Amino acid sequence: MQLGIVGLGRMGGNIARRLMRAGHQVVAHDRDHNAVNTLAGEGALSAADLAAVVQQLQAPRAVWVMLPAGEPTEQTIAQLADLLEPGDSIIDGGNTFYKDDMRRAAELAKRGLHYLDVGTSGGVWGLERGYCMMIGGERDVFERLEPLFAALAPGVGDIPRTHGLQGEHQRAEHGYIHAGPPGAGHYVKMVHNGIEYGLMQAYAEGFDLLRSKGSDELPEAQRFDLNLPEIAEVWRRGSVITSWLLDLTADAMAADPQLSQFSGSVSDSGEGRWTVDAAVEQATPVPVLSSALFARFRSRQQQGTYGDKVLSAMRLGFGGHVEKKS
Amino acid sequence: MQLGIVGLGRMGGNIARRLMRAGHQVVAHDRDHNAVNTLAGEGALSAADLAAVVQQLQAPRAVWVMLPAGEPTEQTIAQLADLLEPGDSIIDGGNTFYKDDMRRAAELAKRGLHYLDVGTSGGVWGLERGYCMMIGGERDVFERLEPLFAALAPGVGDIPRTHGLQGEHQRAEHGYIHAGPPGAGHYVKMVHNGIEYGLMQAYAEGFDLLRSKGSDELPEAQRFDLNLPEIAEVWRRGSVITSWLLDLTADAMAADPQLSQFSGSVSDSGEGRWTVDAAVEQATPVPVLSSALFARFRSRQQQGTYGDKVLSAMRLGFGGHVEKKS
Amino acid sequence: MQLGIVGLGRMGGNIARRLMRAGHQVVAHDRDHNAVNTLAGEGALSAADLAAVVQQLQAPRAVWVMLPAGEPTEQTIAQLADLLEPGDSIIDGGNTFYKDDMRRAAELAKRGLHYLDVGTSGGVWGLERGYCMMIGGERDVFERLEPLFAALAPGVGDIPRTHGLQGEHQRAEHGYIHAGPPGAGHYVKMVHNGIEYGLMQAYAEGFDLLRSKGSDELPEAQRFDLNLPEIAEVWRRGSVITSWLLDLTADAMAADPQLSQFSGSVSDSGEGRWTVDAAVEQATPVPVLSSALFARFRSRQQQGTYGDKVLSAMRLGFGGHVEKKS
Amino acid sequence: MQLGIVGLGRMGGNIARRLMRAGHQVVAHDRDHNAVNTLAGEGALSAADLAAVVQQLQAPRAVWVMLPAGEPTEQTIAQLADLLEPGDSIIDGGNTFYKDDMRRAAELAKRGLHYLDVGTSGGVWGLERGYCMMIGGERDVFERLEPLFAALAPGVGDIPRTHGLQGEHQRAEHGYIHAGPPGAGHYVKMVHNGIEYGLMQAYAEGFDLLRSKGSDELPEAQRFDLNLPEIAEVWRRGSVITSWLLDLTADAMAADPQLSQFSGSVSDSGEGRWTVDAAVEQATPVPVLSSALFARFRSRQQQGTYGDKVLSAMRLGFGGHVEKKS
Repeated sequence: MQLGIVGLGRMGGNIARRLMRAGHQVVAHDRDHNAVNTLAGEGALSAADLAAVVQQLQAPRAVWVMLPAGEPTEQTIAQLADLLEPGDSIIDGGNTFYKDDMRRAAELAKRGLHYLDVGTSGGVWGLERGYCMMIGGERDVFERLEPLFAALAPGVGDIPRTHGLQGEHQRAEHGYIHAGPPGAGHYVKMVHNGIEYGLMQAYAEGFDLLRSKGSDELPEAQRFDLNLPEIAEVWRRGSVITSWLLDLTADAMAADPQLSQFSGSVSDSGEGRWTVDAAVEQATPVPVLSSALFARFRSRQQQGTYGDKVLSAMRLGFGGHVEKKS
Repeated sequence: MQLGIVGLGRMGGNIARRLMRAGHQVVAHDRDHNAVNTLAGEGALSAADLAAVVQQLQAPRAVWVMLPAGEPTEQTIAQLADLLEPGDSIIDGGNTFYKDDMRRAAELAKRGLHYLDVGTSGGVWGLERGYCMMIGGERDVFERLEPLFAALAPGVGDIPRTHGLQGEHQRAEHGYIHAGPPGAGHYVKMVHNGIEYGLMQAYAEGFDLLRSKGSDELPEAQRFDLNLPEIAEVWRRGSVITSWLLDLTADAMAADPQLSQFSGSVSDSGEGRWTVDAAVEQATPVPVLSSALFARFRSRQQQGTYGDKVLSAMRLGFGGHVEKKS
Repeated sequence: MQLGIVGLGRMGGNIARRLMRAGHQVVAHDRDHNAVNTLAGEGALSAADLAAVVQQLQAPRAVWVMLPAGEPTEQTIAQLADLLEPGDSIIDGGNTFYKDDMRRAAELAKRGLHYLDVGTSGGVWGLERGYCMMIGGERDVFERLEPLFAALAPGVGDIPRTHGLQGEHQRAEHGYIHAGPPGAGHYVKMVHNGIEYGLMQAYAEGFDLLRSKGSDELPEAQRFDLNLPEIAEVWRRGSVITSWLLDLTADAMAADPQLSQFSGSVSDSGEGRWTVDAAVEQATPVPVLSSALFARFRSRQQQGTYGDKVLSAMRLGFGGHVEKKS
Repeated sequence: MQLGIVGLGRMGGNIARRLMRAGHQVVAHDRDHNAVNTLAGEGALSAADLAAVVQQLQAPRAVWVMLPAGEPTEQTIAQLADLLEPGDSIIDGGNTFYKDDMRRAAELAKRGLHYLDVGTSGGVWGLERGYCMMIGGERDVFERLEPLFAALAPGVGDIPRTHGLQGEHQRAEHGYIHAGPPGAGHYVKMVHNGIEYGLMQAYAEGFDLLRSKGSDELPEAQRFDLNLPEIAEVWRRGSVITSWLLDLTADAMAADPQLSQFSGSVSDSGEGRWTVDAAVEQATPVPVLSSALFARFRSRQQQGTYGDKVLSAMRLGFGGHVEKKS
């Protein structure tokens, strides 16, 4: 099939490559001409602007937008909508807030345009491992474009089959699903990332406990001097907590047991935040997912917080406790 | 009545004073002779050592130990036990772990000695406001010594009476209770302090939110530059969240709106920790009380934690995210 | 002064009464004619509809809307805006989301109308105790209407003065403040309610710990059978955790120690939710405030949750653990 | 090598089998004679009591105790200690609290006996997948018995090697480590299980969010009716959150999407609790691990809690809010 791709960054570029390897034709555009040229050198048709993307595609066209969520994606989709024709489709593969998908799909539908939201997991490893995709939008549009998703997905590979599944492999076993109407794809991806935050923080707390067990704030007889890289490695082997995130942790610790290249200040992205907002909207308790998000917020406040000063002020007020210098 | 008091620090000294003002006789001892002399100047009998405390009291004796929990209290009680006679009583008014009370009471009972554990709240304000006391131990011993507790307690004062209470004021309305068998006094005090942690953290988070609403990380149109001391003050006036802790916060903010004398590194005491341990033992969820304790732990790690570095390492591993410098 | 009041429920009716007691004139309207008649019997001018409210006021008019947040308030303000004249003011005293205030104030300003958002705390006790008010909007409009706020506020009363405050009492000491531009009043009130959730949950967890200490799931030697109403009462007396919320708890427990009229299913209002959303937006960790909100969400799921079933399914999967019947 | 095994339950029986398959000789004992006979039928030497275990082993003997933690393990080790000779070793492969290991190792050392604590993960799958083992105790004893651990461990298998590791495979890559002195093995296993709780709860919350997105408490236009088994499946395929726990979840959901065999009441074991206690002792914040534990506690309180009733009572007290029936 033919596909236009707008945005050739880490994700978009590799998506283009994986599609071309599967025999699909890609029309590639990026503000950065070098990125376009690189991909053209690998077999893509190059497009200097959005109009050129549209021109080189045959109707019904499909254009995959792979840009930072928010304004860059919003504006690009608005411009594409003016260039495309009824029956054409726009695919947003970025990390868009799912309510933005719902709004956009409704607006585009009035103009006869289709919209798919594709939550895409796989990060920098997707070219090699394939991408896990959760897709929202009209089912028939999804089905028309399915060969593209099938090419991007990991495929059944050698992962042991889920017990109880039989016969022909389902889409989910290939690594992509039609999650539901517009927004459903990014909603499922958002929850996926919320879970990711929780999993990461669970490991982080565990390793903190292993490390603080050797702290000289404990009585000497209570201390263990544990080898964290070795523990990360052994947990990859037959334990209940094996996971890909643990594999990555073992990689990092093998290279640098102190992880000294990192400052301890951890960024968060929109999806962890939206997950907590969704939980509030749905009256669903998410103590772990919110704790994971808050731990990141807290990590960025490397100075004492005002709230903590309020605590010390109260302690002085009721108990005469003078703050200990740490 | 007569009472020996061992430990004339901030709490013990004022307890002695409040008792003497009510006409009780105090035999006072402290390792620091100046503290003894000061109190002798205010009418106490001075005791150079524990034996002198015991000698100057008439049987059945009562000695109030007001020392730091742990070894200092433990050793003093052991020594007193050797000096006292069957029928005498030891009162631990410090912040002892309630299971230590249970053990001690059982040991002392074998020697015919009585033991009361008195959870004492009121801090540096107790001399003026009176002490709130939660008392564990044998009921008849408690009743014999009740005049002492009545003198230390705030009394009914001018606090509006709880709806539905009628007739003569109960002990609780005077500010002290017999909570139960040995350990019950300190158990109730421990939970009191656990609640205190939760209340303090609730205010701290609220003030943090007021402050971060003015942060230049928000778009300018979304910022409010709020006057925190004024807000603390107005909340004291008819709002749902009036409390003594809020009064103390307003005091501190009126003196220094930035609370700049504080570093943001907040200590914790045994009771906040024991409360969480008790919750674990009793299979009772305490998300707020534990969060409050953990916030203090976190406040003391002003360098990035290892756990947070693990998060950054994973993010680099799966997404190629290079850590932003904060 | 003159004030129109729309919405004569529990809050609105008492606000009208407190203003009239202070000599202000109230023009009162409610969809419920009985409510209007009742208030008319107490001295208010009655208005059959919004137009009648506007007609009976002299310019520059001020109308206080005291209705449920959301549609009822939104529609009433829209209708009032059509009836009022440039220079008139609308006051929203309900629990509006502060971003709605910001939007409304901007819209009304285009029509020459003023808008104040008044976060009002005091609940059913306001008539007697006065209302604590946090007010957003143009400063000069606030100042023009200040006599109304001064009448509604508790006044300085006999609350001990904050240390360090001297001279004439400030507004905050009377119980109201000008918090900032439009929305700032409701923002501060929102955070107030967020804190309220945290405080309440801290007490709730503490009382749960007192109660579960008597549970027959503990070994008998570890149990204490504690008297919770007595403990609530004694904590009101000189302890660090005295507060109005504790007073109310003592009231309730004195009347019914088992609190058997309650099911354990706890509602939440918008403000607790918005507080968590604001924390997410402001990247400010609020583990206590969010835990308090989630505890309420959880309390309403009295059937097992799907998430909990997922846990049991995993335990069966990796460990062969068959779920114990509770 | 020769090994005595006491306790032939789900774990102990399969450990015996895996050792025999690797050519080791097992002397097997269990209170349940059928269990002994079954294993004898598979090649083990049977022992009617502990003395018979000891008799059939050649010095220096090694006996692996695989019993429930606490009294059963404690008593068995005490009895074995009386039967064994200096130079012999006891291995505790159960879920013992690591401070009990430290105490036991010190006691046994006085009698010339060695002690290894083996944290063993792998659950019911260990026979097939091998066991992940974290081992504490004297290094030379560990090394002498290493062939047993090597046989039980999964071995390097076909798991992709951690980046940066080169040359001969380390022990950790075979699936077992010498973690440190006595207690270190079970300490690391305890933290492993703490992490396991956090991971499980992260998935549980995520699936709850997927499910509640279809709730009829949301406005219809906001609902998605998501296919949870399909989502669990697709996340196994190239996503960031792939893990063995997710595999098990997919298995369970494929068999029964509603998980209707489960009540939602989730048990916890000692290790999740000890992890939180350790965090408190080490002043290390673990918001996620504690939230996961508390969620299980809460799941077992399917009646309204007293704490929640306290909340409703306060709400009635300050706001006149009458509890909504859920």
